[in-house]
Amino acid sequence: MSTIFSRIIAGEIPSYKVAENDKFFAFLDINPLAKGHTLVVPKQEIDYIFDLDDTMLADMILFAKKTAKAIEKSIPCKRVGMMVIGLEVPHAHIHLIPIQKENDMSLANPRLKLSEQEFKEIAEAIAQAFSSSASADK
Amino acid sequence: MSTIFSRIIAGEIPSYKVAENDKFFAFLDINPLAKGHTLVVPKQEIDYIFDLDDTMLADMILFAKKTAKAIEKSIPCKRVGMMVIGLEVPHAHIHLIPIQKENDMSLANPRLKLSEQEFKEIAEAIAQAFSSSASADK
Repeated sequence: MSTIFSRIIAGEIPSYKVAENDKFFAFLDINPLAKGHTLVVPKQEIDYIFDLDDTMLADMILFAKKTAKAIEKSIPCKRVGMMVIGLEVPHAHIHLIPIQKENDMSLANPRLKLSEQEFKEIAEAIAQAFSSSASADK
Repeated sequence: MSTIFSRIIAGEIPSYKVAENDKFFAFLDINPLAKGHTLVVPKQEIDYIFDLDDTMLADMILFAKKTAKAIEKSIPCKRVGMMVIGLEVPHAHIHLIPIQKENDMSLANPRLKLSEQEFKEIAEAIAQAFSSSASADK
């Protein structure tokens, strides 16, 4: 059976997509710790991030870096923090979380409730910043 | 002025080293969330992880992967989680944390108090697993 992330990537479950290439997909966490909290997943279903082969893992962190830079341009924050837990869904994913202070990364914090409109606007802003940087690379 | 991590790498401040190569250094966090909680830092003083150039960032995640595999071999855990906050010390570092459940990554958790002897034994076990895997690569 496909993981929930594979079904999101396939479009069977709707998501607020922020970036995509041939190997990776990034979309907003619907239980965010902060506005702009994003998940980066490989399209290939691999459970544990440190089981990705070296090339795939290196490509994934570079895709996460580009996504983080797009988040920084769209969401007021000091930094984009990064977290990989890996026990919730058996499909490797990197959490990218815009933060102002260390404690903003704490899993014990309450999750934000955002409206569909807010999610859409955040996703569009990050997606636009991501595409601009992709064009600048060429 | 050098960051505390540069002084650790230079040996001016003692640490429980677990792994090192020409670009990176890994040592035990002295305020660990779990036994085996390790920090991976680049020898070059760069504040924000997403400011590392692509080659350095890719190399860093692969060094972190090797370190995580060595931690898994030495410390009973389900996974090694990964976290980058980046607001505490102006020198990029990846936290590698052996976890049994999602909440083990929470920054709100109390830190463990370990004896010097315990730190030494943990560091030696991880260092040994790291070197064995390095020899196996050849």
